[in-house]
Amino acid sequence: MADRNRRMVLAERPTGMVDASTVRLEEGELPEPGEGEALARVRYISIDPTIRTWMDDAPGYLPPIAIDEVVRAGGIAEIVQSNSDDLEPGELVFGFTGWQDYVIASQAGGYQPLPDGVPPTLALSLFGITGMTAYFGLLDVGRMQEGDVVVVSGAAGATGSTVGQIAKIKNAGKVIGIAGGPEKCTHIAENLGFDATIDYKGEDVGARLRELAPEGIDLYFDNVGGEILDACLAQLAMRGRIVLCGAIATYNDRGGLTGPANYRNLIVKRGRMEGFLILDYFDRLPAAREEMARWLGEGKIQSSEHIVEGLEHAPDALNLLFTGGNTGKVIVKV
Amino acid sequence: MADRNRRMVLAERPTGMVDASTVRLEEGELPEPGEGEALARVRYISIDPTIRTWMDDAPGYLPPIAIDEVVRAGGIAEIVQSNSDDLEPGELVFGFTGWQDYVIASQAGGYQPLPDGVPPTLALSLFGITGMTAYFGLLDVGRMQEGDVVVVSGAAGATGSTVGQIAKIKNAGKVIGIAGGPEKCTHIAENLGFDATIDYKGEDVGARLRELAPEGIDLYFDNVGGEILDACLAQLAMRGRIVLCGAIATYNDRGGLTGPANYRNLIVKRGRMEGFLILDYFDRLPAAREEMARWLGEGKIQSSEHIVEGLEHAPDALNLLFTGGNTGKVIVKV
Repeated sequence: MADRNRRMVLAERPTGMVDASTVRLEEGELPEPGEGEALARVRYISIDPTIRTWMDDAPGYLPPIAIDEVVRAGGIAEIVQSNSDDLEPGELVFGFTGWQDYVIASQAGGYQPLPDGVPPTLALSLFGITGMTAYFGLLDVGRMQEGDVVVVSGAAGATGSTVGQIAKIKNAGKVIGIAGGPEKCTHIAENLGFDATIDYKGEDVGARLRELAPEGIDLYFDNVGGEILDACLAQLAMRGRIVLCGAIATYNDRGGLTGPANYRNLIVKRGRMEGFLILDYFDRLPAAREEMARWLGEGKIQSSEHIVEGLEHAPDALNLLFTGGNTGKVIVKV
Repeated sequence: MADRNRRMVLAERPTGMVDASTVRLEEGELPEPGEGEALARVRYISIDPTIRTWMDDAPGYLPPIAIDEVVRAGGIAEIVQSNSDDLEPGELVFGFTGWQDYVIASQAGGYQPLPDGVPPTLALSLFGITGMTAYFGLLDVGRMQEGDVVVVSGAAGATGSTVGQIAKIKNAGKVIGIAGGPEKCTHIAENLGFDATIDYKGEDVGARLRELAPEGIDLYFDNVGGEILDACLAQLAMRGRIVLCGAIATYNDRGGLTGPANYRNLIVKRGRMEGFLILDYFDRLPAAREEMARWLGEGKIQSSEHIVEGLEHAPDALNLLFTGGNTGKVIVKV
């Protein structure tokens, strides 16, 4: 194989958005699979907000990406050469491929086959970390009940759009999506069945929440943090729950970070604010994926994907999440 | 009865600490008990941080105290004249007496006899709202487990000192109290059995928490909010729990209130932050009081009270909570 491996490594820790100095494209030899390993060609890379947090030199649920290390990311790769009985050439596997053309895959390294009959982009969206995060965050951490008034931010994004659709399937009383701009709001209302929307770029979120949820918010699924979290805290219903999934509004901030001043309303309303990571639910993914497949088959849920072509555009793809330039799951097609 | 009723009414909403213009002492006729009611002489008034929150014109779990209304407070009164078969002259009852000499008591108004054999000051401290808040906050909301590293702020205060002692009785792995000044720290360590203390006025709370709880905080019982809450969030253990009981550090603030910036650590640590009010536990008080009485009989728990003499000093008594001038439960003896 005369091919070379292109790798995007972390050149410098970003101070805000990722830019030209953050990542360096390197070319090198193809890695050599050892005993029980396989060489795999990366086909699709999952672009998630959490990648930005790994670029900071701060403690997190995984270690920071080291300088000169390939940028960490989940992805789907095709086995091209195998020294493992479990990995067949031609097979697609899911794992931490990183931002590169080729990766060494092994079962020990956590690489798994795709769920049966699921196409690659759906394996990264509805059936991947994104969809599973929506599923367990809403139903398990948030313990959504029938009739709940559910609010979700980042509602046109990969996770948020799935949260809203699952909430509808599970008979929420009202599903309110917060998204940036009229196009996204129209999309989630008309195509995804959200009951109401708030355009945070053009509307007063607090005022709209009071109008749309006069009795309060039973469950707020937070993808963004910042002022929107504060507005939802202020409008929490008695025994309201806030599921902390992400805080994308704050990931590019350096210093001067403030927290939600209205957290005190958790006392008045006997509310709960809880964080979670999908990592803790891996043993329960098969059952959730089965339910997801049934909904998909019944036409009750849909996935939008925002495909960016070319490994070299991975940094731009990541920035889309922060500028709100995407609708649905951002995936880099290598 | 030639006696007159002195009442301390809210003259003006305070902007910070309560001062001379906040409350007005009025004198008037004794109230007349109607059918099923009794006239009661107020003997002891419970001074709690929450009284300060009721003075603000802000939504809360109870309506704000109205201007010209008697300041709301729990207290103990002695029945002096009764039109009710359930309230005998000479009997002591607990209820919302307010800051005044006399009150109309009735069963319909929520007045209850004191627990059997419990002296009045203990009825307001260990067996009152204070002790019960500590009990249910720690064990029910916080779900304290044996071996937990427990941190409590306001640790020399009425609720905090009880939290620490119950945590020891229930075999916490380590109980760390945060209090203001070396005297309070010595008191809770030597007299109440706290394993370690942090003097927030003289020590770096974050650094000390990292030193005393290197594996993280399993349960933080928060009475104060502000920077101490933020420091505890930063040092949370995996699946750590934060029980929001109060936020005394913020009650006198007007505007510019910020929240805990480190709330994002709830995601990384899969943590939970939950508020509660003892109001929701009234049906479970008898069982908790029984356990408290047993601990008291066995010498496992003790109560300190800080008695202020004279109704007219109630505002100063309330301010003690915010200046940290008290150790233990503040009670006004009328």
